[in-house]
Amino acid sequence: QRHILHELEQLREQPAKTADGYAVRLSANIEWAEELRLLRKHGASGVGLFRSEYLFLNRAEPPSEDSQADVYGSVARELAPEPVVIRTLDVGGDRILPSEQTSNELNPFLGWRAIRFCLDRPDIFRPQLRAILRASRHGNVRIMYPMVCCTKELKAANRMLEKCKDELRDEGVEFDENIPVGVMIEIPSAALCAELFAPHVDFFSLGTNDLIQYTLAVDRVNDHVSHLYEPTHLAILKLLQYVVEAGHKNDIWVSICGEMAGDPVLAPLLIGLGIDELSVTPILAPMIKDVIRKLKYSDARELAQKCMQYRSPVTVRRRCRELTREIAGEVLELLD
Amino acid sequence: QRHILHELEQLREQPAKTADGYAVRLSANIEWAEELRLLRKHGASGVGLFRSEYLFLNRAEPPSEDSQADVYGSVARELAPEPVVIRTLDVGGDRILPSEQTSNELNPFLGWRAIRFCLDRPDIFRPQLRAILRASRHGNVRIMYPMVCCTKELKAANRMLEKCKDELRDEGVEFDENIPVGVMIEIPSAALCAELFAPHVDFFSLGTNDLIQYTLAVDRVNDHVSHLYEPTHLAILKLLQYVVEAGHKNDIWVSICGEMAGDPVLAPLLIGLGIDELSVTPILAPMIKDVIRKLKYSDARELAQKCMQYRSPVTVRRRCRELTREIAGEVLELLD
Ligand SMILES: [Mg+2]
Ligand SMILES: [Mg+2]
Repeated sequence: QRHILHELEQLREQPAKTADGYAVRLSANIEWAEELRLLRKHGASGVGLFRSEYLFLNRAEPPSEDSQADVYGSVARELAPEPVVIRTLDVGGDRILPSEQTSNELNPFLGWRAIRFCLDRPDIFRPQLRAILRASRHGNVRIMYPMVCCTKELKAANRMLEKCKDELRDEGVEFDENIPVGVMIEIPSAALCAELFAPHVDFFSLGTNDLIQYTLAVDRVNDHVSHLYEPTHLAILKLLQYVVEAGHKNDIWVSICGEMAGDPVLAPLLIGLGIDELSVTPILAPMIKDVIRKLKYSDARELAQKCMQYRSPVTVRRRCRELTREIAGEVLELLD
Repeated sequence: QRHILHELEQLREQPAKTADGYAVRLSANIEWAEELRLLRKHGASGVGLFRSEYLFLNRAEPPSEDSQADVYGSVARELAPEPVVIRTLDVGGDRILPSEQTSNELNPFLGWRAIRFCLDRPDIFRPQLRAILRASRHGNVRIMYPMVCCTKELKAANRMLEKCKDELRDEGVEFDENIPVGVMIEIPSAALCAELFAPHVDFFSLGTNDLIQYTLAVDRVNDHVSHLYEPTHLAILKLLQYVVEAGHKNDIWVSICGEMAGDPVLAPLLIGLGIDELSVTPILAPMIKDVIRKLKYSDARELAQKCMQYRSPVTVRRRCRELTREIAGEVLELLD
């Protein structure tokens, strides 16, 4: 095992490119600026998901615009020219801001979360948008909205962003005028209507954990039903395929930042479906990179086409596992 | 208004057929056997959804197999030869059996509900299936499973049903050997993979209330987010269209028993999408029948085709409203 780990660490400086030369972007999900050193250690390129809510959760009041701008700016500077995708505040659900009343929602996962909360609370959303914009001059910063279910929300968020840009211009504060904006695709309606979002964004990022939960109506931390949580359900594969098609038809980059992306068994399937970027927990990056480098893109395409034909999620997973075992059995050894 | 109501009541004996001769099935949703008289009064044909959970909710212990067989049998007898679709127990979510512990689920709508609960609790499910089978010899009885998200569940429910049939045969108890079995399509994965369900059932019934909630990740009784609950979101229309296509390709009857079916503004759109049956609250049946009888099926088809092209749910609703106003303005007067 130590031998395998050592081998994987040697990949740090190698590109995430398949054996037949197809480039995949392999980035990292982080929660704290302090995790940036893990990116270098494990050889991930840039941050595909910076979960900004952790700046908010362990303090009595929301952080000021200035202190947010400092954190985002330092991350941007350290990573430049690699990108950092900052997700706007994703609270609600199982993460309640200390400054808010507990919500007493019957079903918080179907409730006042993320962009829904932020659009209703410009006192919290505006300072964050301004802080991200201010940080953008220090590097390659991108903004991403979570939990968008309709274009009305997406347009409202973009209007708020434009207003913040206007303010900063008036104040003479520099920022990246072309800061890319993306939307998380993690609600079934967003996946089903991705083409309606395309004119309003520069990239899609599939949040598969939530997408699977909603598509199957399964809370995966509920022991009574977690056995129904199936990343390889045909419904999920259809949604992923649809989002990639809608994205690429509109020149939109498609990333995945859910746990699926960091599963060495599923990565070939995702690449075969046309996903452009896998954003994973830093520690998983070496394994995923190893799989990518030993994979042929043509085999990944074939695998994806086959998997779209299977009726059972178990068959899909088995076929995926066979391919990973064949090309990178040592990774499965590490995991088992 | 009294005049309009009087006119509508005159439709009682008239068929639910469009002006150009296309027959729609107009049935009723009921919770109690006592509501059967409302069917006759309001001119609905048969019961498209009998919500069996009300037999269970206002008593300390689940009703016995015998007492269930009595209720289902009397409903079947009274309606024969019209069908009654009995939905198996749909508890969990916001309806907890008095005999069960409160569930303490963080998100009950994504939890241990309906078929998920029943498959884990044969002590409750088996007596109900046996009672429905026993009732089936008295009329035109159909079984329907709620909240199915994958074929594994559907097959398990059917296996349990076959076991109950075997038992009854051994006991020499008569039942309808060809009792039709249906599945509710109310979880996005079920809609997206309806073709996988088709080999295992005789009909689909779209539970649009839940389908909309899950597809948009919106709890519609949560005041913070209920404004996002949009029956005319393009994602919903796509799912409805997909289910109808998958159904009809496999000779499967497609019904809707959600609130959408009883909305005079939306009924023409649903008919235009190819829905075979609208199952509504009895009191709404006269209005829906009036709209159907004044509607041209060709106009409904055209409306549906147009609505699939609109980007905004508001535009869809407006177009639907225009058609209903044009053909049956008096119904909108009643509602406004
Ligand atoms: Mg999420
Ligand atoms: Mg339901």
